[in-house]
Amino acid sequence: MISKKMQMLVQNNSVIRAMFEEGKRLAAIHGVENVFDFSLGNPSVEPPEEVKNAIVDIINNEDPISIHGYMSNSGYEDVRATIAKSINEKFSTAFTQNNIIMTVGAAGGLNVILKTLLNPEDEVITFAPFFGEYRNYVANYEGKLVIISANTIDFQPNLQEFKDKITSKTKALIINSPNNPTGVIYSEETIIKLSEILREKQKEFGTNIYLISDEPYRELAYDNIEVPYLTKYYANTIIGYSFSKSLSLPGERIGYLVIPDQVADYENIISAANIATRILGFVNAPSLFQRVIARCLDAKVDIDTYNRNRELLYSNLLSYGYECIKPEGAFYMFVKTPIEDDVEFCNLAKKKNILIVPGSAFGCSGYVRIAYCVAYKTIEKALPGFKALIELVQ
Amino acid sequence: MISKKMQMLVQNNSVIRAMFEEGKRLAAIHGVENVFDFSLGNPSVEPPEEVKNAIVDIINNEDPISIHGYMSNSGYEDVRATIAKSINEKFSTAFTQNNIIMTVGAAGGLNVILKTLLNPEDEVITFAPFFGEYRNYVANYEGKLVIISANTIDFQPNLQEFKDKITSKTKALIINSPNNPTGVIYSEETIIKLSEILREKQKEFGTNIYLISDEPYRELAYDNIEVPYLTKYYANTIIGYSFSKSLSLPGERIGYLVIPDQVADYENIISAANIATRILGFVNAPSLFQRVIARCLDAKVDIDTYNRNRELLYSNLLSYGYECIKPEGAFYMFVKTPIEDDVEFCNLAKKKNILIVPGSAFGCSGYVRIAYCVAYKTIEKALPGFKALIELVQ
Repeated sequence: MISKKMQMLVQNNSVIRAMFEEGKRLAAIHGVENVFDFSLGNPSVEPPEEVKNAIVDIINNEDPISIHGYMSNSGYEDVRATIAKSINEKFSTAFTQNNIIMTVGAAGGLNVILKTLLNPEDEVITFAPFFGEYRNYVANYEGKLVIISANTIDFQPNLQEFKDKITSKTKALIINSPNNPTGVIYSEETIIKLSEILREKQKEFGTNIYLISDEPYRELAYDNIEVPYLTKYYANTIIGYSFSKSLSLPGERIGYLVIPDQVADYENIISAANIATRILGFVNAPSLFQRVIARCLDAKVDIDTYNRNRELLYSNLLSYGYECIKPEGAFYMFVKTPIEDDVEFCNLAKKKNILIVPGSAFGCSGYVRIAYCVAYKTIEKALPGFKALIELVQ
Repeated sequence: MISKKMQMLVQNNSVIRAMFEEGKRLAAIHGVENVFDFSLGNPSVEPPEEVKNAIVDIINNEDPISIHGYMSNSGYEDVRATIAKSINEKFSTAFTQNNIIMTVGAAGGLNVILKTLLNPEDEVITFAPFFGEYRNYVANYEGKLVIISANTIDFQPNLQEFKDKITSKTKALIINSPNNPTGVIYSEETIIKLSEILREKQKEFGTNIYLISDEPYRELAYDNIEVPYLTKYYANTIIGYSFSKSLSLPGERIGYLVIPDQVADYENIISAANIATRILGFVNAPSLFQRVIARCLDAKVDIDTYNRNRELLYSNLLSYGYECIKPEGAFYMFVKTPIEDDVEFCNLAKKKNILIVPGSAFGCSGYVRIAYCVAYKTIEKALPGFKALIELVQ
């Protein structure tokens, strides 16, 4: 009785989420301390103290009808103005509240902007490896996801193939840097070249191609590496931001879209995105957390914790003989599997109570994603398992 | 550059939301105390004290990683179990956590269930007058909304026309009682007859027809009128509940779906609804408020305040010569316009700084909706305007 589209999805449910559920099942059997769940990007670092203080202060001192009530579908004006000001200070931009739409996380924001832009059969390009949900988000609006194959040398995007695959039907490109699943940050050089290609192809086809930057991991960059702010490189850029990782609030579903004035058809896009927020059933981003994050725009989670995890896992996996690019951001490591079949490798890992996700879920088989946003101890206790796994198959 | 579908929507944006924005504009000119905004169903009664206490207690005493983190897309198991138990106690049902999916309000829940069920061209029936967003929700999944014309005698559904319009393509019926915009509660007699028609037609066509009950106003029933719990009358019932009005939390986007075991294709529906929650970009209902509402299932907003508003507005409008059914629930009054053109009447009202919504937005022209979830004083101050309006056109 369910729809045909959903029948397909029920059969091929998200590997990541299935692994998350599997983790809970195994934890019930073996005890949570003996299951090493690297499957989900669920932050292991507490939200900064500012979050708690903001919640308590707002609840105690602001008007409850206002803080829990409806507001414009795009969000509270003052919250949007505060966010615009904060972006301007950090990146020398010139946004106002009219460039910001509050969203139900980055996932909500991507759905809003894709609903806004896509006609059936429009093409949306993304670079493998990519967050597998892009498939569903694009399919929700009958678009066609065009995947550029992975450059497994350094996991910067494959720009030649990108150039070749842009057509007159290309409506958007989604990029994600720091990247899930590789942890790679797209360099400024990459961004400049990519922008040039986009401009060239817009001219060739007489179209507008929107660059949608999915940025939940912007604040998680190690070794002071800079993450370029894309609106400065390419006019038709729309940014989807989330506080899920920057403030460790993934369950609260709070983020925003930046839609700059210079984006082609700005007026219609901003109106349509406001309406899309409403009719997709979001209605608005959760109200209390809009007010909370507005007070926490300079707060930071303790990224050193993730960095220690990164160093521990990376150095040990390398010493066991695994091949892997050292991640520069986010909290994922994308590791070449010592056997060709990544799904099979994940099944072997599961027998050691290690839960990881096959690269094929990200459009790049032969790799696995390890989400190291876990306790340091979990990594320590899982290391013998990783060692045994590579010995097993060598 | 925006999609063709969104172009249409930008041109015909929600009258209700446009009125809400207009209210803010007028308030800036005339002062908020001189604008009488009856346009939006935004609760004017504070959330019960239990909400604040729950927030503060959870924030102070529970693990911040857990309360703000990801959980299953369907929501926290313990929250769902608590909700099931509470429904069972109130309505002698036998639900478990496996019948509950936490949603981003009722709007999120309706989108999840429609995404789950609808194939393109499937028909979804609703009774006029109806919440205009049903049009968009059904269109999101390429379904066709079939509208049963209003029975303006008592605003109970027109069951003969309903019976005639069910076809082999009818996938669902959406009902909403207490009703927006009329405030009418569908009687048990209505529900019994309606269920009989559904069963008969299921048999005739060899199909399953899902009854989707949109219940944000369940707790707002006056004079101790009972609102029938629909799963007890018809097996293929799915309930969409929201805490927006019952706890005055519309901005927080928190509600749930009830999908009983006896619903046809239960296993697939529950799996698909879980996936739809994820891929539509909700990911999960906001985490903190899942935990908050689980502690407030017996808390109630002060419905007497709405009741006083109802009595004041109803008795005075009648004394001026307006025609109107006395609402039994919710916080809306659906009033016959003294001139035929309801849009024109709303424009006349706007000149008196009274913001109301034309009935045509609800599929029933010749009426206006007055949302009386405002301050008592606002009604008192608006009454001369309502009086002048009817005198103006008589």
